[in-house]
Amino acid sequence: MEKKIKIGLIGLGTVGTGVVKVLKNFDNIEIKGVAVHNINKPREVEVSNLTDDPYKLVNDPEIDIIVEVIGGCNPALDIIETAIKNGKHVVTANKELLARHGAYIFDLANKYNKVILYEAAVAGGIPIITPIKTTMRVNEFESVAGILNGTTNYILTKMEEEGLSYKDCLKKAQDLGYAETNPTSDVEGYDAMYKIATLANIAFNKRIDINKIFKEGITKITKEDIDFANELGYKIKLIGLARKTENGKIDVRVHPMLVEKDNPMAKIGNALNAVLVKGHPIGEVVFSGPGAGEFPTASSVAGDILIIASELNKYDEILPMARCNHTEFANQVDILDTENSYYISITAKNIHGTIGYIGTICGKNHINILSILQKGLSSDHKSARIIVITEKCFEKDIQNAVKELENIGENDEKFISINNIIRVME
Amino acid sequence: MEKKIKIGLIGLGTVGTGVVKVLKNFDNIEIKGVAVHNINKPREVEVSNLTDDPYKLVNDPEIDIIVEVIGGCNPALDIIETAIKNGKHVVTANKELLARHGAYIFDLANKYNKVILYEAAVAGGIPIITPIKTTMRVNEFESVAGILNGTTNYILTKMEEEGLSYKDCLKKAQDLGYAETNPTSDVEGYDAMYKIATLANIAFNKRIDINKIFKEGITKITKEDIDFANELGYKIKLIGLARKTENGKIDVRVHPMLVEKDNPMAKIGNALNAVLVKGHPIGEVVFSGPGAGEFPTASSVAGDILIIASELNKYDEILPMARCNHTEFANQVDILDTENSYYISITAKNIHGTIGYIGTICGKNHINILSILQKGLSSDHKSARIIVITEKCFEKDIQNAVKELENIGENDEKFISINNIIRVME
Repeated sequence: MEKKIKIGLIGLGTVGTGVVKVLKNFDNIEIKGVAVHNINKPREVEVSNLTDDPYKLVNDPEIDIIVEVIGGCNPALDIIETAIKNGKHVVTANKELLARHGAYIFDLANKYNKVILYEAAVAGGIPIITPIKTTMRVNEFESVAGILNGTTNYILTKMEEEGLSYKDCLKKAQDLGYAETNPTSDVEGYDAMYKIATLANIAFNKRIDINKIFKEGITKITKEDIDFANELGYKIKLIGLARKTENGKIDVRVHPMLVEKDNPMAKIGNALNAVLVKGHPIGEVVFSGPGAGEFPTASSVAGDILIIASELNKYDEILPMARCNHTEFANQVDILDTENSYYISITAKNIHGTIGYIGTICGKNHINILSILQKGLSSDHKSARIIVITEKCFEKDIQNAVKELENIGENDEKFISINNIIRVME
Repeated sequence: MEKKIKIGLIGLGTVGTGVVKVLKNFDNIEIKGVAVHNINKPREVEVSNLTDDPYKLVNDPEIDIIVEVIGGCNPALDIIETAIKNGKHVVTANKELLARHGAYIFDLANKYNKVILYEAAVAGGIPIITPIKTTMRVNEFESVAGILNGTTNYILTKMEEEGLSYKDCLKKAQDLGYAETNPTSDVEGYDAMYKIATLANIAFNKRIDINKIFKEGITKITKEDIDFANELGYKIKLIGLARKTENGKIDVRVHPMLVEKDNPMAKIGNALNAVLVKGHPIGEVVFSGPGAGEFPTASSVAGDILIIASELNKYDEILPMARCNHTEFANQVDILDTENSYYISITAKNIHGTIGYIGTICGKNHINILSILQKGLSSDHKSARIIVITEKCFEKDIQNAVKELENIGENDEKFISINNIIRVME
């Protein structure tokens, strides 16, 4: 009979509550204490040893594993740091902490011969971290791309299905509890950025500097963009992308993308998440499922706890494959040096030669136009909406072309304005 | 520095060759020998120590892991049995062996404190065995359903996309090397049966008797069935299904199913595989990717080898979570006691009251009709094709109703013949 593994749970919000419920069925795991911000707040689950001092738990010599589900870096970083120094293994769902301070805490964990598991930090309930670190370990990964934020995927899905504006769909998401009152972290792409940083990190065995990750959210996506994309055979998704370039650099970014309708990513609707992994020898595999929520996330957190518990009784140096085995930072690509195909939404004054301007300036900047779409004129006949899809070209050339286009005009009157630029997924 | 892990590779066909290529990049793994049927046959890869006697390897005290990729039960079973008794861990891609003799070899492995890993035995390159055993271990699984045979999925996809007959598409699959000259194992559902048996086994922690698995292949599926299904909003897929019933029994079966077009399974085309896992707390996750082929399968085999190697240097009792921790056989449900919704394709003589007969006999057998579809008459006006979709009802009632329908007639002339019955996925 195994000895009971004692855990200290830091945080009793949605995820923490789910973890308590799930672990009830496992009598080899004992929740020795739970640290919360307000011990007087009524709770959905009954827990003994509620405390408002997390250090009571991280300093408790009886506790084997600290489970951190409060999110954010402060005080989570110090709590985890102290836990590791006190000889505890760590399970966390904290994507921001991993993205910002992963290098430090993984070094610390290795120094103290402890493991940090974080399956729940990326794509909630979907098993992706452990499969990449174990079953798929033999692979030379080419790219990892994902729909990693359920809130924005829900908003984009509703915009498409119900023809509503971004604002209306954000409101819907907030009413349903999919989006926070302050939705910045989701809609501006921070959440997806933290997650793709972690995926890039384990897929390419390099550390990722999130300050070098290009990030763009979905706030500029309009109903028109979605309709035009649809007409051209695409859906618009917020994609976290990490790929290895020919010269061995790592290209990591988060931004909306036009995704061909027959791409598996295009079929992931509502609040679901999906991760598409390409590599050799495996080829292409897709993992999809619930990216958030009390129970799916608890499935991953509790899974990590069982994984640690399974070896904890037996070995001193547990789970070698789960450890961080790299310290080198990736040579990250600047977005300006990336090559993409682009969707460009243009509003042009109804004057002679506008299409000519567009064609000429694109050509001058080494940009080939793949397709162009203009549907009549605005109701007042003063302007036209023109959609251009380019062939693959350099981001810096696109940026230059856009500047030039926006400068065309007479006196103070500009002829062309760019409504939106969206990259197209390969 | 870890000591080199020495493996003995049994089989150098497609998968074995892929494994040799993939392991070249891992200098902590040494292929000490390779056993083949014919040592004189020219090989795609260069290997030292080729032998036609697998026992040279399983009896070699220096070898740590035996990797069996010959398939079939004889001589694979005896080879694996001997390897375990000689203190070797085993990696196998042998779905038939696991399904037929799993109970025996897992008991043996436990007795000798060895592990058997088999990620490649189900869904080729897709990580599914290890995730179910580790990351998803906390879950109470409700069902596991999969498109587990790429050959039949390719044939059904082509029948739908190109409007060709089963025969023509089988020919195509054979020309492309997707199907064997003798396609029985694929098209009659044996291959999918072995795989769903293993999935049921690990998801429900019970042993599965494959003789109690209802199995039906795709040979009776016609172009008409696919067209009618399409018209009614479904695709036809060969599904391996394992589900826990209300009374705790396990319902395991393989047969074609009508799958609603917006079900993730319906979107898996060509030779791809997919596994849909439902459970609590995780909800629903889908894994999809290449289900076969040299490289995807080698990814899983080599992954298992690395997983064993990672702990082999350090511990005596490695990978506790990977072991078989159950010996009890499942209480399996007889297909006659299952409840399903059914697609029934009927050819009826052009006489009065046929629809009446169908309605009456269905009603008498507690079968409610959900939808019924008749499109005019046959060119000779002598008969009509009628498609019935039933509500959920018992298989035994359907079987009785079908017998009764086929008996309606005058003298030797029967009025109704049943062309096909296909279950509908929930």
